[in-house]
Amino acid sequence: MIDEIKKVDEEIKAKLAQWAKEIIERAKKTGELAFFVPVRTLSNVIWDEEKGILRMGERVARRDFLNIGQSKRFLQTVIVASAIKSLVEEGVTTSLRDVFYRVKFTIPGTKENVVDDQSESDRAIEDLETILGFVREEFHVFSKGGKGHVAGPIEIEEYVYSPDGKHRVVEVDGTNVGMGGWAVPPIVEPQRVKIKKVEADFVLVIEKAAVWTRFHEDRFWDEHNAIIVTAEGMPDRATRRFIHRLHYEYKLPIYVMTDADPWGWYIYSVYKQGSINLSYLSPQLATPPAKFLGMTISDYYDFNFPRTVQIKLNDRDVKRLKEMRRYPWFQKKEWLEEFNLMEKKGFKMELEAASSKHWRFISKEYVPAKLEAGKVLP
Amino acid sequence: MIDEIKKVDEEIKAKLAQWAKEIIERAKKTGELAFFVPVRTLSNVIWDEEKGILRMGERVARRDFLNIGQSKRFLQTVIVASAIKSLVEEGVTTSLRDVFYRVKFTIPGTKENVVDDQSESDRAIEDLETILGFVREEFHVFSKGGKGHVAGPIEIEEYVYSPDGKHRVVEVDGTNVGMGGWAVPPIVEPQRVKIKKVEADFVLVIEKAAVWTRFHEDRFWDEHNAIIVTAEGMPDRATRRFIHRLHYEYKLPIYVMTDADPWGWYIYSVYKQGSINLSYLSPQLATPPAKFLGMTISDYYDFNFPRTVQIKLNDRDVKRLKEMRRYPWFQKKEWLEEFNLMEKKGFKMELEAASSKHWRFISKEYVPAKLEAGKVLP
Repeated sequence: MIDEIKKVDEEIKAKLAQWAKEIIERAKKTGELAFFVPVRTLSNVIWDEEKGILRMGERVARRDFLNIGQSKRFLQTVIVASAIKSLVEEGVTTSLRDVFYRVKFTIPGTKENVVDDQSESDRAIEDLETILGFVREEFHVFSKGGKGHVAGPIEIEEYVYSPDGKHRVVEVDGTNVGMGGWAVPPIVEPQRVKIKKVEADFVLVIEKAAVWTRFHEDRFWDEHNAIIVTAEGMPDRATRRFIHRLHYEYKLPIYVMTDADPWGWYIYSVYKQGSINLSYLSPQLATPPAKFLGMTISDYYDFNFPRTVQIKLNDRDVKRLKEMRRYPWFQKKEWLEEFNLMEKKGFKMELEAASSKHWRFISKEYVPAKLEAGKVLP
Repeated sequence: MIDEIKKVDEEIKAKLAQWAKEIIERAKKTGELAFFVPVRTLSNVIWDEEKGILRMGERVARRDFLNIGQSKRFLQTVIVASAIKSLVEEGVTTSLRDVFYRVKFTIPGTKENVVDDQSESDRAIEDLETILGFVREEFHVFSKGGKGHVAGPIEIEEYVYSPDGKHRVVEVDGTNVGMGGWAVPPIVEPQRVKIKKVEADFVLVIEKAAVWTRFHEDRFWDEHNAIIVTAEGMPDRATRRFIHRLHYEYKLPIYVMTDADPWGWYIYSVYKQGSINLSYLSPQLATPPAKFLGMTISDYYDFNFPRTVQIKLNDRDVKRLKEMRRYPWFQKKEWLEEFNLMEKKGFKMELEAASSKHWRFISKEYVPAKLEAGKVLP
């Protein structure tokens, strides 16, 4: 709701002011112009087995303005903070790239720019996410347009905020969407996207948009009372967040379906445990109870696929497979067996391989059979 | 409408049958098992200055089953034709990748597969598009999920065909869509997507989805009575076709806005004249009266952008710029001046550079100023 968006805006402004005040008070007391920020490098990423997520550890770094190696990063974070303040005050939502250009100016009296590369402003935003305890979507900042598409028995209210005060509420009925489905917006925080009603029994997340279209045309969502979602490959934050919300707000089981290759299986793990890069956001983005529905190399044998669907593993695949086998979150009997089988047989397989049987094999036989037999991986 | 979809299906089946009959009759008469297909290589792409499109020339190639070099291509086209027949008969819509797997089987009695690479089945479909005079979308075949997003004063009816007979009609009001807009479906042929009502004065096509979001949030479509469209980079066929239809069915002026770099400018030319690869489809996809609204290097000076938004041209940019300057469809004074200016100044510029001024500069000042001054390129 519009009021809720404004409430979060006020909280952000208050936190920013408090943070600035703390920096100044510390400077007065100690003579140090500095702030502290949790470390987000790989060395501080922890596999939390109990929670089943990749999360940020406890290590904290100092950004000291008077330290020659840190002064620029100090300055970048402060200037990006002021850009965020203006976004929140003006009620404008924008992209990381726009923030980059906004803060890419020459520091007066020098020949130095505040930032020269987008990675620098992105990092400053990540600093502020962890320092202030908000996600950047709450700062009104997104990356690109949303990648997600959704259909099925779900009712959504989208609160479309307007900087000019002409706010709108858009009602979405997931059973009455076109072939493109509901386009997941770039920001799906609860103050902007309300999930009003869910009558589905589960959520099926499909790696590839083209395959999702098969399930949509076949009204899988109607026949199996499910919500179907795709984010075309590696999911964006908004789609991951939306799936996280479906699970935690409506207790819906989440099934993920990807190609049978190391890259597809990694995508599954991103939905489930979170990613290394965004480990600090796993509590908002990851869905540890998600299950893997397919494809696997076992499926090749169980469903008697023709030999022609096999794609020989290349060197990159083999290398990636070896890396995956070492990830602590894949240390499960069922997964290790699948890794071994793939390595031994030397091939991978795509979701579209199902069309070798008949056009609708994947939606009408493969997935229903797997669901009925409970043939999922943890 | 569902009836219209079925009518096209019947036409396709009739044409396929007629084509097969002709091949057999020619074989009986001449002993040759062959068919003819227009050549789609670069050597047969013509720049049609009068129509303002890239189009296919008149050259035709023969595919002869008894010629050892051509027999496989003959076979591939015939087998893909039979796959298309089954799609049309079963009322199923699917992707190029699925068609590939469907026809990737071992030819009985041999060790050869019909196809080994998707490029082979794709080429066979292109053969059939030109031979039969349909677009593959009418064969129920798309590439990926749609890339397009649309908002503004437009009403659309989407006819969602169901292979099980549970067809649906979805009404879309472009002024009442969420932040993701209406997701352009992978197929927008008139029998599936009806443009019911258009009250807009023009269409603004925006290269980047994130920038489109700026215009959407700022209700540019309301303030300027325009339809806003994005296809995130190089447009897919569906979005190009949709824009083509907006122009030819509703006489709407089309303005295209891309980055000021050779790649963005080429994207403009794809909307306008068509692409080299798909030149045989330009009559369905291209919109020659489209105009270029920005960005240009002149804009950098006219709008007094700060130096920090300049991005130095790299070797690839310079090479691409030289190629572009030779394209016959860019032989216009205004464009040659812009090419020269870019080369001389040695930099390019992104749409997001506008945020260096203020967050809403692009939607509230830059585009309105350009429109008012009629500062467009041909």
